[in-house]
Amino acid sequence: MKLSLGLDFGTLSVRALLLDLESGREVAVGDCAYAHGVMDEALPSGRRLGTDYALQVPADYLAAMEAAVRGALASAGEALGVAPSEAASKIVGIGSDFTSSTVLALDAGGAPLCAQERFSDEPHAYAKLWKHHGAIRQAEDLQAAARLSKEPFIVRYGHCVSSEWLFPKVLETYDLAPEVYEAADSFLEGGDWIVRVLTGVETRNSNSAGFKAFWDKDAQSYPPAAFFDSVRPGISASLFSKVRDNVRPTGSLAGLLLPEWAARLGLPEGLPVSVSVMDAHAAFPALGATGTGSMMMIIGTSTCHELMLAEDGFTDIPGMCGVVRDGLLPGFNNYEMAQAGVGDSFAWFVDRCLPASYAQEAAARGIGPHELLSEKAARLAPGESGVVALDWWNGTRSGLNDQNLTGVLMGLSLHTKPEGIYRALLEATAFGARKMVSLFEAHGLLIERLYATGGISRKSPFAMQLYADILGKPIYVADSLESAARGAAIYGAVAAGEAASGFYGIFDAVEKLGAVMPGRYEPDVSRKAAYDELYGFYERMAGFFGVQHPEMMRRLKGAVGASRR
Amino acid sequence: MKLSLGLDFGTLSVRALLLDLESGREVAVGDCAYAHGVMDEALPSGRRLGTDYALQVPADYLAAMEAAVRGALASAGEALGVAPSEAASKIVGIGSDFTSSTVLALDAGGAPLCAQERFSDEPHAYAKLWKHHGAIRQAEDLQAAARLSKEPFIVRYGHCVSSEWLFPKVLETYDLAPEVYEAADSFLEGGDWIVRVLTGVETRNSNSAGFKAFWDKDAQSYPPAAFFDSVRPGISASLFSKVRDNVRPTGSLAGLLLPEWAARLGLPEGLPVSVSVMDAHAAFPALGATGTGSMMMIIGTSTCHELMLAEDGFTDIPGMCGVVRDGLLPGFNNYEMAQAGVGDSFAWFVDRCLPASYAQEAAARGIGPHELLSEKAARLAPGESGVVALDWWNGTRSGLNDQNLTGVLMGLSLHTKPEGIYRALLEATAFGARKMVSLFEAHGLLIERLYATGGISRKSPFAMQLYADILGKPIYVADSLESAARGAAIYGAVAAGEAASGFYGIFDAVEKLGAVMPGRYEPDVSRKAAYDELYGFYERMAGFFGVQHPEMMRRLKGAVGASRR
Repeated sequence: MKLSLGLDFGTLSVRALLLDLESGREVAVGDCAYAHGVMDEALPSGRRLGTDYALQVPADYLAAMEAAVRGALASAGEALGVAPSEAASKIVGIGSDFTSSTVLALDAGGAPLCAQERFSDEPHAYAKLWKHHGAIRQAEDLQAAARLSKEPFIVRYGHCVSSEWLFPKVLETYDLAPEVYEAADSFLEGGDWIVRVLTGVETRNSNSAGFKAFWDKDAQSYPPAAFFDSVRPGISASLFSKVRDNVRPTGSLAGLLLPEWAARLGLPEGLPVSVSVMDAHAAFPALGATGTGSMMMIIGTSTCHELMLAEDGFTDIPGMCGVVRDGLLPGFNNYEMAQAGVGDSFAWFVDRCLPASYAQEAAARGIGPHELLSEKAARLAPGESGVVALDWWNGTRSGLNDQNLTGVLMGLSLHTKPEGIYRALLEATAFGARKMVSLFEAHGLLIERLYATGGISRKSPFAMQLYADILGKPIYVADSLESAARGAAIYGAVAAGEAASGFYGIFDAVEKLGAVMPGRYEPDVSRKAAYDELYGFYERMAGFFGVQHPEMMRRLKGAVGASRR
Repeated sequence: MKLSLGLDFGTLSVRALLLDLESGREVAVGDCAYAHGVMDEALPSGRRLGTDYALQVPADYLAAMEAAVRGALASAGEALGVAPSEAASKIVGIGSDFTSSTVLALDAGGAPLCAQERFSDEPHAYAKLWKHHGAIRQAEDLQAAARLSKEPFIVRYGHCVSSEWLFPKVLETYDLAPEVYEAADSFLEGGDWIVRVLTGVETRNSNSAGFKAFWDKDAQSYPPAAFFDSVRPGISASLFSKVRDNVRPTGSLAGLLLPEWAARLGLPEGLPVSVSVMDAHAAFPALGATGTGSMMMIIGTSTCHELMLAEDGFTDIPGMCGVVRDGLLPGFNNYEMAQAGVGDSFAWFVDRCLPASYAQEAAARGIGPHELLSEKAARLAPGESGVVALDWWNGTRSGLNDQNLTGVLMGLSLHTKPEGIYRALLEATAFGARKMVSLFEAHGLLIERLYATGGISRKSPFAMQLYADILGKPIYVADSLESAARGAAIYGAVAAGEAASGFYGIFDAVEKLGAVMPGRYEPDVSRKAAYDELYGFYERMAGFFGVQHPEMMRRLKGAVGASRR
């Protein structure tokens, strides 16, 4: 038996999955939440944060990783009838993925600056989570400069720069916490930091670098110094010393597991560790899709849409997140679109709007609030709730690409019930997904086969049928408990090499280890027709609030921020 | 000591107030809720109702009246140190008000048809509460016919007919439950029914008749038979036999208290009982306002705006509820505008959206959910919530006058908290009030002094300050525990005549018995400026959803209704 260990660092927790490389079976999964979760109101010290902040404590990643790996080994031992150490001895490689762009400021030894006493009360010394939105001004500056000087890279990013990316976050630190910027030896993606911790080798993965740091695969470089100096005069020398040019292909071998971490995790020393990858993207190899026109929706707190196309050059799609050559699988362009708030908005609803009577009913029946709401919502016909939403609870990414846009609920009445709003939120995220598909198709990029993955895709047949009805396309669902962790394990196996893993390359591994569930969700013609009308309302509202009068939401968002900071 | 008894029949309960006619003191108040409340989901039999239904059980009014009057007498006895019967002996007259247009179908003896076994399962045999919205088609038919034949009356109603009014509700019964229409000897306003029950005399009050039944004070008549026959061929003869022409001036003497009811209520036989008045309007005499340009907002489940102007003729304001000569005080035009959902929408929020953690916090602190939400909302600056709402939870009345429009929440984000939405709802109702004031002023009707009454006006200084800031005008608040009941008591005193009451007419009584609280709410300049901007957003959304694209909300409302009926 040969196993590969996949580590999937998500927004709230990490999962460790052990994949049997011969049978493709997921032998065991361990998981552990981050002790401090997402800090969006205060630091551990109690210091208040602005409303756009979303920080994490890097030490949480390591503690959670240790617990998750040990949990997976214990489960695997039980499943295989052997000791955990015996299960560990079967592992041939380690792969990992991480949310992105989650940016850490590190000292020369690779330790996060927030671990230093002097920076313990400094927000910018903590990990800036992907959904930290404090760098809006910096993103605007970078975008304006890139458009002005017609930097070639900007076309690959739909002509937009998001505040969620690496350079805006680093520039935010430069502007607001210069002593942190000064003290930082490097700024590193969370995933690359994990690899550095495990192997002692600093690499930057081509996937995050390509999508979140303007890195150009063909030129093998970041934008020129003059560009950054035009945004912040004289910054380029220090910036390039802290964001170094050590980008390596996703899934290639980064280094070998250090003895210290082998001991902490209960793993053999010297295991091959692959270069990191973004968590959403890691799910792709787990689908087994190697054909051009394969598109994957990773439906989680947010949704990423990944379209793989075998083509020369690339298509300029204003408002897309990006297109990266060899971003995931060699030889393919990897187009990305994203919806900024999906599961997040459902969680918001349960957290902020679920009435006590519903909480009690769910508790009495021993089910979760999402399960209860889905059950009630599933009894409604399309449009019956009377409510149509704009799914912009976390701003918009692809398409309008504006962090300052916000959500709308339209059609509320004295008869509106919680499940009606919940369903409208779910429908709105599917309308948002349809918008992404429309953007691709409007630019001539054809989707041959649509896949879904992420927790909702397996847990909620109701949601997936609704997505199929709204998108008007059949949907295949990944057959994995943890698609991203499975994909990470596939990368880990490939990094271990053919002799150790039995795979002669990534395509071989993907074809043998990827899997979708039997059957697929077929769109229903009459529900599709009803949703076509509601989608028209969604589009009309999007035009009004996002295109004709974006100043309303922007002003309101500004008022909120201004009053808190 | 001379007392007058005022009975205020509201949406959910009745209040009985004993007013000392010499000191103006409110000696005692009794109240009692209607046993069946508002039936908007099912009849007592379990029969399901369409989503636009809002029905009541007439027997509830009588049972609640009995309990409320006996409660008031007991309290008065305690306060005065005498037996309840001794307190009752001081009463010189009875006045009452009622929600309107709340329409009952009665047999020849004056008993509601729903009390008959054969109609107990028939929705149209129950009282149709003011906010019953089942008669939208009938209102549209009446409005179209009136516009087509240029009926003079339609101008007095802003060129619109609301489904909440008497004739639409009667026509709905004619269309959907012809056997009920056939069996009805009369259709009567709830307030006029109470007077009939207490005195045995059928009257129709000029206030409801003027505002809700097209009755013309100058012509002393309803619209002509030909008009109604153009809407439903041949209906006029039966209609005029059931909606009779026995309209009497509001506040005049209707009849004397029957022995049977004197006994049930514990009152002296033969007390003078005044002609009824609409509940919202009854509050006006309680303010002591007799000057032209006095405007009153009665902020309750809905809000009515009453503007009194001494003038010849009247101004044509498209979209107003109506203008009635002598509607309240002789010699004045009484202009009315209305907002369809105010307190209702706050109650909806608490009922459907209050999270368990907030419910627990309120319970632990021994305060109500509205108090908790107001306290949290009051800590926010204007705009800080980031949310702006359209207050159309119950459709719109004045202005756009469309029952099918619905509410909007704009600016929602993952940071939005319940108190932010609650404050946005409150602000939206104040924006709606500002819209009413703007409509008056745009037509040259100047507001000299603005009054507020209703529960919120006394209970929530936070809300009243917010209204003053948004309206940009000082607001005087009625000094009464129950303004409408106090106004009803004033009408009751006047009906009793000068010899019994000591007042030589309505103006004398209003000037001596009306009262406002010391001080007034002054608008704050800087908050006003912030709200001016938010009001611009409100207006822009109202234009988009209500004027440019009303088909969206209308279609959604239709979809809801269609699926339930």
